[in-house]
Amino acid sequence: MELSRREAAAQSKDFVKEITPQAVDYSQWYIDVITKTEMMDYAPVKGCMAIRPFGFAIWEKIQELLGARIKATGHENAYFPLFIPQGLLQKEAEHVEGFAPEVAWVTKGGDEVLAEPLVVRPTSEAIICDFYSRWIQSWRDLPVLINQWCNVVRWEKATRPFLRTSEFLWQEGHTCHRTEAEAEEETLKMLEVYREFLETEMAIPVITGRKSEREKFAGALRTYTVEALMSDGRALQAGTSHNLGQHFAKVFDITFLDQDDQLKYVWQTSWGVSTRLIGALIMVHGDDRGLKLPPRLAPIQAVIVPILSKKAREQVLAAARDLAERLKEVVRLKLDDREEYSPGWKYNEWEMKGVPVRIELGPRDLEKNQVVLVRRDSGAREAVPAAELPARLPVLLEEIQQALFQQALQFREANTRSGSDYRHFVETMEQKRGFYLTAWCGKEECELKAKEDTKATIRCIPFGVESGYEHCIVCGEKAKETVYFARAY
Amino acid sequence: MELSRREAAAQSKDFVKEITPQAVDYSQWYIDVITKTEMMDYAPVKGCMAIRPFGFAIWEKIQELLGARIKATGHENAYFPLFIPQGLLQKEAEHVEGFAPEVAWVTKGGDEVLAEPLVVRPTSEAIICDFYSRWIQSWRDLPVLINQWCNVVRWEKATRPFLRTSEFLWQEGHTCHRTEAEAEEETLKMLEVYREFLETEMAIPVITGRKSEREKFAGALRTYTVEALMSDGRALQAGTSHNLGQHFAKVFDITFLDQDDQLKYVWQTSWGVSTRLIGALIMVHGDDRGLKLPPRLAPIQAVIVPILSKKAREQVLAAARDLAERLKEVVRLKLDDREEYSPGWKYNEWEMKGVPVRIELGPRDLEKNQVVLVRRDSGAREAVPAAELPARLPVLLEEIQQALFQQALQFREANTRSGSDYRHFVETMEQKRGFYLTAWCGKEECELKAKEDTKATIRCIPFGVESGYEHCIVCGEKAKETVYFARAY
Repeated sequence: MELSRREAAAQSKDFVKEITPQAVDYSQWYIDVITKTEMMDYAPVKGCMAIRPFGFAIWEKIQELLGARIKATGHENAYFPLFIPQGLLQKEAEHVEGFAPEVAWVTKGGDEVLAEPLVVRPTSEAIICDFYSRWIQSWRDLPVLINQWCNVVRWEKATRPFLRTSEFLWQEGHTCHRTEAEAEEETLKMLEVYREFLETEMAIPVITGRKSEREKFAGALRTYTVEALMSDGRALQAGTSHNLGQHFAKVFDITFLDQDDQLKYVWQTSWGVSTRLIGALIMVHGDDRGLKLPPRLAPIQAVIVPILSKKAREQVLAAARDLAERLKEVVRLKLDDREEYSPGWKYNEWEMKGVPVRIELGPRDLEKNQVVLVRRDSGAREAVPAAELPARLPVLLEEIQQALFQQALQFREANTRSGSDYRHFVETMEQKRGFYLTAWCGKEECELKAKEDTKATIRCIPFGVESGYEHCIVCGEKAKETVYFARAY
Repeated sequence: MELSRREAAAQSKDFVKEITPQAVDYSQWYIDVITKTEMMDYAPVKGCMAIRPFGFAIWEKIQELLGARIKATGHENAYFPLFIPQGLLQKEAEHVEGFAPEVAWVTKGGDEVLAEPLVVRPTSEAIICDFYSRWIQSWRDLPVLINQWCNVVRWEKATRPFLRTSEFLWQEGHTCHRTEAEAEEETLKMLEVYREFLETEMAIPVITGRKSEREKFAGALRTYTVEALMSDGRALQAGTSHNLGQHFAKVFDITFLDQDDQLKYVWQTSWGVSTRLIGALIMVHGDDRGLKLPPRLAPIQAVIVPILSKKAREQVLAAARDLAERLKEVVRLKLDDREEYSPGWKYNEWEMKGVPVRIELGPRDLEKNQVVLVRRDSGAREAVPAAELPARLPVLLEEIQQALFQQALQFREANTRSGSDYRHFVETMEQKRGFYLTAWCGKEECELKAKEDTKATIRCIPFGVESGYEHCIVCGEKAKETVYFARAY
């Protein structure tokens, strides 16, 4: 048969190109995956990007599933202004020192040069505290539990799509409390929300702990973090929760009249996760064929690919449509009935796009009244009687969800090493990366020396883990803290 | 009984203050309502505001209900960059002329002065077209049906919360099509989505039609609009849908290889509604007691206020909690069991906040095994046996929804006048406002003269309505179009 114009056009599009293998060039693999799957595209502004529908659908699932948890813990959503007057950002000394070097400045509105330049929010503590100082008067106004989903801008020098971009999307919670204990409880509660969300929905195991003074948020009393390990052995800070103490309350004058008639400063927290979670998803689960999406987060959980021979074309198509109709209440489903692509081409495309299960349906399956299910994570195939599919599919999806988590956990465990010998530490960071569990004296100079020698930073002082070593891995003095080191994104 | 410290604090808060009556000062009434209900607060940046949780919950309902319609018509969400390089904005001549005077300029990133200034998006045609020119190659890539929910900035001189602010939230759809007919069909389809959403969910009747050349979107071929009438007789443009023709495609070089092997420019549309819908909601339905929220959009549809006498306090509270538990699957419900406020204070607060139904439950009701329902819209009371409540409440809410729509429709009809005498037109706009249906020759000079004399503009050239007049109301020459004039926000 002559190649029709449509078929030629389809083939010339050459959608499923080879992806650079991880082992050859991990960074290029990452870029190949996100561009070929049409998750994003580079903007004409340095360090910015468009999140295309396929990538944004993942962000929408994150918003839906994490957003429900944020509301279930008593928080309400609101929206605060994009622009922060220079004077407000400068109020908290550590905060401005941390953020001023990386903000975008609006200096002109219409034709008018602004008397006071405006900062495009890099984070919203300063503008929100200004509002809170007016909204809060009495103990009855507390706690204030507000979250916002928005865009923020940090003028980054070295950027990488999703992981570090000049503009990104995130949620930022900002709360005020009567007591220090309540603020600490909130800070840890939201860290736990992040941990549970990441592990349950994203199938990403994380280590929870506290940041060192050097690594904490600019203006915070203490910063807590959830840290994940990417498949190249580098760590990624997936979310942070800050106990702000009274630092901001004092400079923004956020006070309340307590039940004992005393005027007091509030205790505050803030916490956030961003579109960098999409980067984590790709790098924790992806392989040389492309993405692997955990079923709970996958915008499409299963794709039906009908195998259309000339003879049984209409029957197979009708059966596929009937199947799609029956399954759409059970799973998030796509029927790929495009005629200009072959089944093999579609297999490749949906594997690259990480859809957890492929449902193959051909003339022979039709005769046997069955379908064939193919798992994206393992490649395993199973024939399932059509009647059993609505029951089998959700179970299979949950099996895949658990398998992805276990695989990531095993990878992390295999790539977590520990020791007390500095040379072993340096070699491990150089040759194998991964997490390195050890002891630290608590001094910044040792933290800095380690970074200089290994490019690794203290990812966190973990909860409930003891290194067992008594001396600082860098200086050999008495250790104060158990820490995880890693090279990080 | 001595006034306890808590009660004194509660009363000193003085939450339910008087709202300026509409008849005294409509603008002040509007400001009173949105500030006293804690929908918004003014930002330290001119023309900007924070949308507080009570206001933002309404925006979330709009996002949910309109968002579902946008997806159901085949559109996907995405996210495009906040910043547009100056050069891109300048590509389309009419577009830059329309928007350049009112944009915010980013001129500095970190310490570095930017070589090319960036515009904070006032709308995203320019940046999106830049992406589309790369994403679209073949007829098989069409149609492109993308929407985004985001913030935009227009440096407005005169601002009013929700109605016109320097930063606002909106959704903007941007689509590309093979043919002019498909683009026109899409433009009208989305206008119809807006009409149906406004009328069904927001209980706001609208007039649909086409904008005059003078009033169309900067860069569009044709702009369609949904126009609503506020209770002070001024019109509000509630949403617009633009057929962009090939204006942008030609300057941004968005071409595709069609099935006939010809390289062609795409045909485009864009359409949007914004947080100004919240302003419309307030001004269409509100009264001197505050907000009236249509039940379908109300974040809280019914509030239970227990009447707690000393004697039956525990029994009433227990019954109220039991009721709340039984009703929470049926309606969006709040149980107001705060002890520091009296029932009367709570009635005022929830009326001001526009909750459609109040459920009163006191000791006598408990004896009779009933509750009393009070409608916010009409004040009507009805006693309902507790057992019948789960069935009655949704029906009552729908009755209120319909009543609000009918009331708004009747107001609009009573405030829509028509004529062919210029003096009558001028007097009507001066004394009564409302819509004025008449005929127009189509010349911009007549449109401008009418605006100068009456402050009224052509709101639209309506679909399916004929004025019946044959001569232009301004110049008396042969009329070409039927138009609605009104003073507008």
